[in-house]
Amino acid sequence: MSLRDRVGHLVEGKRFQRMIIVVIVVNAAALGCETSPSMVAAHGPLLSTVDRVALGVFVVELAARLYAHRLRFFKDPWNCFDFLVVGVSLLPAGGVLSVVRSLRILRALRLVSMVPSMRRVVSALVKSIPGLVSLSGLLVLLLYVGGVVASNLFQSTGDPRFGDLGATVLTLFQITTGDGWSDMMRDLMPAQPLAWIFFVCYLLVGTFTMLNLFIAVVCSAMESEIQTSPVVPAQRGAPDEVLEEIRALREEVRALRMQPANGSD
Amino acid sequence: MSLRDRVGHLVEGKRFQRMIIVVIVVNAAALGCETSPSMVAAHGPLLSTVDRVALGVFVVELAARLYAHRLRFFKDPWNCFDFLVVGVSLLPAGGVLSVVRSLRILRALRLVSMVPSMRRVVSALVKSIPGLVSLSGLLVLLLYVGGVVASNLFQSTGDPRFGDLGATVLTLFQITTGDGWSDMMRDLMPAQPLAWIFFVCYLLVGTFTMLNLFIAVVCSAMESEIQTSPVVPAQRGAPDEVLEEIRALREEVRALRMQPANGSD
Amino acid sequence: MSLRDRVGHLVEGKRFQRMIIVVIVVNAAALGCETSPSMVAAHGPLLSTVDRVALGVFVVELAARLYAHRLRFFKDPWNCFDFLVVGVSLLPAGGVLSVVRSLRILRALRLVSMVPSMRRVVSALVKSIPGLVSLSGLLVLLLYVGGVVASNLFQSTGDPRFGDLGATVLTLFQITTGDGWSDMMRDLMPAQPLAWIFFVCYLLVGTFTMLNLFIAVVCSAMESEIQTSPVVPAQRGAPDEVLEEIRALREEVRALRMQPANGSD
Amino acid sequence: MSLRDRVGHLVEGKRFQRMIIVVIVVNAAALGCETSPSMVAAHGPLLSTVDRVALGVFVVELAARLYAHRLRFFKDPWNCFDFLVVGVSLLPAGGVLSVVRSLRILRALRLVSMVPSMRRVVSALVKSIPGLVSLSGLLVLLLYVGGVVASNLFQSTGDPRFGDLGATVLTLFQITTGDGWSDMMRDLMPAQPLAWIFFVCYLLVGTFTMLNLFIAVVCSAMESEIQTSPVVPAQRGAPDEVLEEIRALREEVRALRMQPANGSD
Repeated sequence: MSLRDRVGHLVEGKRFQRMIIVVIVVNAAALGCETSPSMVAAHGPLLSTVDRVALGVFVVELAARLYAHRLRFFKDPWNCFDFLVVGVSLLPAGGVLSVVRSLRILRALRLVSMVPSMRRVVSALVKSIPGLVSLSGLLVLLLYVGGVVASNLFQSTGDPRFGDLGATVLTLFQITTGDGWSDMMRDLMPAQPLAWIFFVCYLLVGTFTMLNLFIAVVCSAMESEIQTSPVVPAQRGAPDEVLEEIRALREEVRALRMQPANGSD
Repeated sequence: MSLRDRVGHLVEGKRFQRMIIVVIVVNAAALGCETSPSMVAAHGPLLSTVDRVALGVFVVELAARLYAHRLRFFKDPWNCFDFLVVGVSLLPAGGVLSVVRSLRILRALRLVSMVPSMRRVVSALVKSIPGLVSLSGLLVLLLYVGGVVASNLFQSTGDPRFGDLGATVLTLFQITTGDGWSDMMRDLMPAQPLAWIFFVCYLLVGTFTMLNLFIAVVCSAMESEIQTSPVVPAQRGAPDEVLEEIRALREEVRALRMQPANGSD
Repeated sequence: MSLRDRVGHLVEGKRFQRMIIVVIVVNAAALGCETSPSMVAAHGPLLSTVDRVALGVFVVELAARLYAHRLRFFKDPWNCFDFLVVGVSLLPAGGVLSVVRSLRILRALRLVSMVPSMRRVVSALVKSIPGLVSLSGLLVLLLYVGGVVASNLFQSTGDPRFGDLGATVLTLFQITTGDGWSDMMRDLMPAQPLAWIFFVCYLLVGTFTMLNLFIAVVCSAMESEIQTSPVVPAQRGAPDEVLEEIRALREEVRALRMQPANGSD
Repeated sequence: MSLRDRVGHLVEGKRFQRMIIVVIVVNAAALGCETSPSMVAAHGPLLSTVDRVALGVFVVELAARLYAHRLRFFKDPWNCFDFLVVGVSLLPAGGVLSVVRSLRILRALRLVSMVPSMRRVVSALVKSIPGLVSLSGLLVLLLYVGGVVASNLFQSTGDPRFGDLGATVLTLFQITTGDGWSDMMRDLMPAQPLAWIFFVCYLLVGTFTMLNLFIAVVCSAMESEIQTSPVVPAQRGAPDEVLEEIRALREEVRALRMQPANGSD
């Protein structure tokens, strides 16, 4: 057993994985505590030590798995996710990249890749994405077209929610979620009395498209549900049995026909 | 017939159960009246007497059922629920526990355990819970991770809705329900012009996960619906009839073949 | 052909029904115009004449149908609906009953009973109601229990939305629809910092129950869809054809067996 | 190969269609830039040139396709859509028609008719519309009837949202989408303490009808899903095979019966 195999064996072991889960949870808790200024004032050094130690453990773990599996490591998308999440934390966090510090908590999502039942749930979620590409494209197109129309219609009112194309598209996204669309319409109607036509049309088209996006997801989920159910094979079994029975009967009739004059001569 | 049996017979009887339902309804009505200060001023002593009498009836009823069924009583989760709800009311209600007084109304939920059709509905609801554990865990993880990210990003704005980790998680829960998310985003955008990226991403991920939680519930409900439907046995019946008919025919052909030279000679 | 039959024939005729539809539409338009003060000032007498004539036509029509069908008339729930809607308009409209005047427009709903495709849609809606009784009962119970708890907890804050039991139940209904629940919670939290526990719990329980109500409707709709779909009969048809074919074959074999020595003698 | 055929061949070619897609995207981007006053100030002439060139390309393309397919061109609804969208841009854009200018962006929707996967999605959306006509009619009727009732009840409160029938119907549409219905109700309740009865009833009836509209869409989508799934033909195939087998057997028995005394004599 080579060193590479031994490392691989260790890394895939139950005990090691449980330890990593513990490190992930402790690290997530420490990052949660760091959001509280009073906690940072009291235990700041401890918290940042926990964070550094956890990062060290993750780097060692990933290095070991990379050593054990070599480039096959990157074939599993879960490994790529782990690699990315840990790699981000190693970037220098000064200047523009200070927002990267707040992404350290994404390491807590490694929990998903470690717990099998959650892994299955997320895999199912991700698998349903490809079927949604066309409809999502349609929604993006609707947002863009609606955004240009709304910009042309409402920019002159001086409402900041329709200030430029970006703001307008964000506002239309808000309308599609159905949150506060009526307040927006009522604010615009004194200046543009026919604004309701745009709002009602966009709401109907957008909601109808979203509804169909929803149905597409449900249908594809149902379809896979039906295909894995045992109804069809059970049904096919019965006629097969009938067919065999009939063929046996036909053999018997043929034998009867070939009988040399019924044994009478 | 022992005393234990006689008590059990009495407690399970239609008449007794109907009486308990009446006591539950009267008690619920009295507790409803107690929320009105004017009603309490006028009929306060009467209302609290009704409540005490109802509690007494429930205690006697549970004691009788406990006596009749002995420890098997606790095997039925509905009994545990009854026991808990009545037991809570017997706690001393002073000091910190004054909130317990407002939980007395939970006794009205005993109605669910007494009316069979409601009992079935709640049983069905409870049965669908285990299938949701993984997805709920994912949602909780998303709330925590999102909460830490949002705390880091928006705490500096001084908005009380992102004041500490708890407030932020509550705010993200609000975003997931889709209520008032756009107002929140617009309040933050003067200070953090890129806040919309976080809001749109979180809304899409959260809603997509919720949608799949929903589909999981629908699918499991459909599946049990299909498995209990009588389509499959009806289908199998028909080929069985065909098979019998064919076997009879084969018998006939065999008889024909064995005939001693057609009986003509 | 008796007078009764002739009247029945006339009333059920295509031309008569089309005329009634026209009267309904004209009447609905007139009642719509009556909501505009300027229209009433300009054409008030005309509008009220149209309304009276339409009412007269409806009374004559119902009298004719009642005469033709006698008491069988009331067996059809659509007829009862027509009778009720027209009858309400004949009540004296003074004093407390002035709200009845605004119910005259309900006559426009007679359109539903006259147009077959709408009639089918509403029949389907009404048929799905009985299956929802248990779950609706559960929702009402939740509203009541939640209302008493919320009254006890929040009445002391002086918020008018939790002023008495009725207002509280209405507020909880609002929370169940998800509209503005977060504003309400944030208004209460300075006085009751733990109010969020009640809100989050009630929202989760209420939404989960609503979701299951929804699934119950979808499932029952699906079930009837499956039972009325032509899959099952088509399947049964095939084995029937097979059975006939086999029986004919058996007849032939029996004839063969009974043949007097194959015409050889 | 006539000129007409050659033009048709060119127009349907991959390369030509890809060029048109590029023109659509460039045109949409230019129209998006035109919404920004600073972009117009800097590159105004360029943007309007791009728009005019793109329009010219579209006119030439449509003319070529019209020449190639003659009047069959209008049989494809996608062609009619293209024709309409391009035709609108050719209208003079002064005076009242200035709003037409903002409809130029609808040309971006031509992308849908050029990309096959989007085309299929939109076709599926459009196909699900006819099944919704009856239910949509019912919703419109509910809006009208509810609008007249609400006008009669709330016009006297002077709330502009119930000012005339049009405003009221728009408000009821807002209630049906569930956005801000509770604020509206609370504004009305000081003047009309029983307003909640109307709001709760309308919300329940409207939401229940919408829910059923939703179910109708899901069911019809499911139905077509089931009919296009390969379960039914597979099932039918088996009995067909059985039937053939039985008919062959019957032929054999008939031949046996017709044999001239078994050919033995």
